Amino acid sequence: MIIIMSRDASGEEVARIEERLSAAGFGVHRSQGVERTILGAIGERSPELLSTVAAMAGVEKVVPILKPFKLASRDFKPEPTCVTVGDAVFGGAEAVLIAGPCAIEDEEQLLSTARRIKAAGAKLLRGGAFKPRTSPYSFQGLKIDGLKLSQEVAAETGLAVVTEVVSPHEVELVAEYAQMLQIGARNMQNFALLQEVGKAKIPVLLKRGMAATIEEWLMAAEYIMNEDNYQVVLCERGIRTFETATRNTLDLSAIALVKEWSHLPVIADPSHASGRRNLVLPLARAALAAGADGLMVEVHPHPETALSDGPQSLNFAEFDELMQGIEPILAVMGKHL
Amino acid sequence: MIIIMSRDASGEEVARIEERLSAAGFGVHRSQGVERTILGAIGERSPELLSTVAAMAGVEKVVPILKPFKLASRDFKPEPTCVTVGDAVFGGAEAVLIAGPCAIEDEEQLLSTARRIKAAGAKLLRGGAFKPRTSPYSFQGLKIDGLKLSQEVAAETGLAVVTEVVSPHEVELVAEYAQMLQIGARNMQNFALLQEVGKAKIPVLLKRGMAATIEEWLMAAEYIMNEDNYQVVLCERGIRTFETATRNTLDLSAIALVKEWSHLPVIADPSHASGRRNLVLPLARAALAAGADGLMVEVHPHPETALSDGPQSLNFAEFDELMQGIEPILAVMGKHL
Amino acid sequence: MIIIMSRDASGEEVARIEERLSAAGFGVHRSQGVERTILGAIGERSPELLSTVAAMAGVEKVVPILKPFKLASRDFKPEPTCVTVGDAVFGGAEAVLIAGPCAIEDEEQLLSTARRIKAAGAKLLRGGAFKPRTSPYSFQGLKIDGLKLSQEVAAETGLAVVTEVVSPHEVELVAEYAQMLQIGARNMQNFALLQEVGKAKIPVLLKRGMAATIEEWLMAAEYIMNEDNYQVVLCERGIRTFETATRNTLDLSAIALVKEWSHLPVIADPSHASGRRNLVLPLARAALAAGADGLMVEVHPHPETALSDGPQSLNFAEFDELMQGIEPILAVMGKHL
Amino acid sequence: MIIIMSRDASGEEVARIEERLSAAGFGVHRSQGVERTILGAIGERSPELLSTVAAMAGVEKVVPILKPFKLASRDFKPEPTCVTVGDAVFGGAEAVLIAGPCAIEDEEQLLSTARRIKAAGAKLLRGGAFKPRTSPYSFQGLKIDGLKLSQEVAAETGLAVVTEVVSPHEVELVAEYAQMLQIGARNMQNFALLQEVGKAKIPVLLKRGMAATIEEWLMAAEYIMNEDNYQVVLCERGIRTFETATRNTLDLSAIALVKEWSHLPVIADPSHASGRRNLVLPLARAALAAGADGLMVEVHPHPETALSDGPQSLNFAEFDELMQGIEPILAVMGKHL
Repeated sequence: MIIIMSRDASGEEVARIEERLSAAGFGVHRSQGVERTILGAIGERSPELLSTVAAMAGVEKVVPILKPFKLASRDFKPEPTCVTVGDAVFGGAEAVLIAGPCAIEDEEQLLSTARRIKAAGAKLLRGGAFKPRTSPYSFQGLKIDGLKLSQEVAAETGLAVVTEVVSPHEVELVAEYAQMLQIGARNMQNFALLQEVGKAKIPVLLKRGMAATIEEWLMAAEYIMNEDNYQVVLCERGIRTFETATRNTLDLSAIALVKEWSHLPVIADPSHASGRRNLVLPLARAALAAGADGLMVEVHPHPETALSDGPQSLNFAEFDELMQGIEPILAVMGKHL
Repeated sequence: MIIIMSRDASGEEVARIEERLSAAGFGVHRSQGVERTILGAIGERSPELLSTVAAMAGVEKVVPILKPFKLASRDFKPEPTCVTVGDAVFGGAEAVLIAGPCAIEDEEQLLSTARRIKAAGAKLLRGGAFKPRTSPYSFQGLKIDGLKLSQEVAAETGLAVVTEVVSPHEVELVAEYAQMLQIGARNMQNFALLQEVGKAKIPVLLKRGMAATIEEWLMAAEYIMNEDNYQVVLCERGIRTFETATRNTLDLSAIALVKEWSHLPVIADPSHASGRRNLVLPLARAALAAGADGLMVEVHPHPETALSDGPQSLNFAEFDELMQGIEPILAVMGKHL
Repeated sequence: MIIIMSRDASGEEVARIEERLSAAGFGVHRSQGVERTILGAIGERSPELLSTVAAMAGVEKVVPILKPFKLASRDFKPEPTCVTVGDAVFGGAEAVLIAGPCAIEDEEQLLSTARRIKAAGAKLLRGGAFKPRTSPYSFQGLKIDGLKLSQEVAAETGLAVVTEVVSPHEVELVAEYAQMLQIGARNMQNFALLQEVGKAKIPVLLKRGMAATIEEWLMAAEYIMNEDNYQVVLCERGIRTFETATRNTLDLSAIALVKEWSHLPVIADPSHASGRRNLVLPLARAALAAGADGLMVEVHPHPETALSDGPQSLNFAEFDELMQGIEPILAVMGKHL
Repeated sequence: MIIIMSRDASGEEVARIEERLSAAGFGVHRSQGVERTILGAIGERSPELLSTVAAMAGVEKVVPILKPFKLASRDFKPEPTCVTVGDAVFGGAEAVLIAGPCAIEDEEQLLSTARRIKAAGAKLLRGGAFKPRTSPYSFQGLKIDGLKLSQEVAAETGLAVVTEVVSPHEVELVAEYAQMLQIGARNMQNFALLQEVGKAKIPVLLKRGMAATIEEWLMAAEYIMNEDNYQVVLCERGIRTFETATRNTLDLSAIALVKEWSHLPVIADPSHASGRRNLVLPLARAALAAGADGLMVEVHPHPETALSDGPQSLNFAEFDELMQGIEPILAVMGKHL
């Protein structure tokens, strides 16, 4: 870390910091400028030390040198990680398609959707059983009945199931019914939940929080990996900005940057990102062209009767169009379904 | 709700929506303009209906009329709510001061801080035992030992304890040791947790999420109140914006607006909002002048050795200055400690 | 527009608003609900009326129905607009490539760049002569000498020139040397400048402001078009968000949405958007896959000696890679250089 | 500046950067860590060098040490600057009140407002003659007639006039009629305009841009001061965030931080910040409690007929309430009108 002393820092203040850093096992270099003293401390990044040094007298700013994530970084593991879920492999030459309704409503809805998306090339079925909703008066999901339904439908169609888990003590239960656990945007920094899905040792789909930096997102992955679960797939789903014409702002720079910084697979969710059915195809294409390893898309047999997120759900015909629309982009990117 | 049809919506599409709304028990008024048809639907706000109507063919936009929160709104309860915790009453003529370290570290730290803040007029002791940290490698809190310590210290000093709970299944445990449960910014939309603290029926301090709108914040309160727990105190702690000179941007408009929309008490946390010790006093004064019912401030006997948030913690002398600095503002606002 | 009255609005207040709207030539419909009265006013959108009605007693909220832009909208002109600059046509089957240095430095730099980009398929040369810089101590551009240089280089290489104009009274001067005038992000709401480039009647490249909504961006185009200059090409260059890992956040939803709302061509600038050389290719591909009509890319013979924006400039070899990398995406999108 | 080399930077790459820095007159210190090399370069901050070094091979990140502003900084001038306009002095023991309509409409409107605000203690009359409006179809101001009117009204009432200038070539004209020139939020980085008001050598009110960092705001002041005009008063008027309940988010941390970093006076505009009449008083109090040197408030004899910004304008009675409401806060802060 680099410590920039304030202009009027005393020699004693500088010395006190040097002592503190040395005591913590850091090698310290001092650069004495005309206006300021700069200290360079060489050693492992320690969040506590960063914070306490920043609080010491005479310090203007502390700049970390190393990125805070380790297990998730390319430095730690240069080759890309592949995560296998059912027949799908995230992170390789395959572009994995996850599709399905926002919320599981009934058997007819789920089964018809599953058949259609399977036929079109999807490998995973999404569908919320435990739904985190802004309002307590909104439909909260079918819960355990939804899980059972999705398990049956998956068995019948040969799809794998990814579904959201919202509470640490439900991880075990949900993991019985699903092949992949989803951490939603609102829970990206629910650390108790992250640790629990880490311990469950099954693949995790980690959505980026609405106001999470890329660094914080990778730190959330680090929480899971720190429990010895390396099967983490990241999912960019739009960040919150001042723009209100779209539900969120899909950040495709994040896709490209995550590929550079991390070995983990990363996919995009153009449905939640835009909140507008018409934008799903162009954003799906754009995400794949930016290097995404797959897509998560909302599909519903009748979006106009959906219990949630109708405006952004594709109907079956629109989903077929999407699949046709992304195919040539996949070919360009050297990927296949 | 108001439904704005698209320019090229057919008569049939308009009729289909009118039917749907009528079937749901809404009274519908049609305004036929030169360019567009507008439908006004009168009835209770229903999140599902809003969403599904928005997905129907021919609809350009759906505009809700009523605010989504009920129990938290002034319409529901015009007079201010008072929440009693130990000797403190939030929401009345008292300005409640909560102070203490970010994280509980040891008995000496906690006891010396508690004595000092008590002497200066604070009524509640804060101090994290379960710490949600961005990095899994950061100090995660003393957990149960921290809770016990804070209980002992509280007993000795006559302060009440407010501490964060991060997991639904720990609510009961934490509630044994604390008089008020804190929901942190990262958990503001952890709905499972909100429901659980609702059921616990003890006072809750609900921090605003970093990217939460005022409406979403009040909806989070609604989750707690919907479990018949009306003892909710809101806490503005800064939102995430493009500005990097401060850790967050304290949104004092939110204080004033919450007072207008809701009957719940609201306080401010200038320490987390700014992340800079020097800004705590001016922002504390500003928050009280904007109408806040209290403050939450980080105090540590030795900020430069603190295990977290040192740069924004006040030492004892600085805390005394703060108390002297806010006193005349309180007098102006007709409040007292 | 729709006027939502507050819960406690009196009958007299409602009547006063109906009178006001009728006097302004609006047809008014009243919807009387149990809790609130809603008024629908049918007529042309008037910014003044929106604002003054919103200020009247008893009004809770005014919701505009129509979008505020007219000339820029698809409703006004359903077919796409083509803008011709030199040999390039924006908005049709061609994907127009604009390339060149951030700032014009000297003849060798500009000429070598121009030759290389021309050979690779670019049609327009960019290069700032008047540079708006955050610091008054930064290089401000070669000004008139830069303009002359770019004119000579363009003549020699057969490229057209696009360059930024920053002051209304320099529009005429700059227009003598360039075939297209650029309005930079910082000047997107410099209305005096917009009107002046409107009057100049030459093609305009209008960059989106860092904090401008899509609607405000199209309103800026409206200012130019309102002076009878319809040759406007929009350029998405990233918006300012909380994310600091990239210079800005490229908003590709905006590309797709502008295509839906407006008939104007729209291109993307992945260089300024990301501020990182490594991200230029993936974002360029993504922008084209989202439907962009072209790209604006920074190229410099020696980025590490560039007087501005070196970190995001491609060198010649990298530019060649970019061109090869986007070609197959263009083919998929039915476009060609 | 500090240069953090990438993990795999070669010794040659490090050497090349050291040469470059030395050639530019910088003293260079090298810190060799286990994982990375860090270079510290001591010398004056140079925006060009920062940028070009960042583009050199092997460099991961360049961190500036010094703040980019000089003339505006406390380091340059520790004691506060006082700016005198008419009878008012910004930056001392006085809290200067600027009030008046958003746009000048007619003599009756302006004169009645001027009389009332003068009586209540305001020293400056605001009122736009050249109005930058988002829509070209909105009222654009009375222009030169508005300037004349405000001059007459000022003469009659003994108030000084502050009015916005939007174009460099109108600076001279506007300066004939006004005692203080306002740079609006949209023009904060209109550098041609900043230089021109710098040359005009009359006091300038510099509003913060909607998406401008505090550092960029002070750099805009630096542009004016670099033309030898030190009479700059800063005005915080809210920044653009994701929150839509208020027009902007008033950033009061910025008030306190500007006071720490700079010697320039700073005031707040609670009217534009909130866009809601009800919030003007609480935010005015809060701004003064945070240390603001004054306020700018919109007042209109009949807000419900105002040609712009009616919803946030106070009527005369409300303005009187505001003045009474802020008085005791001023007393606490040791200020007077």
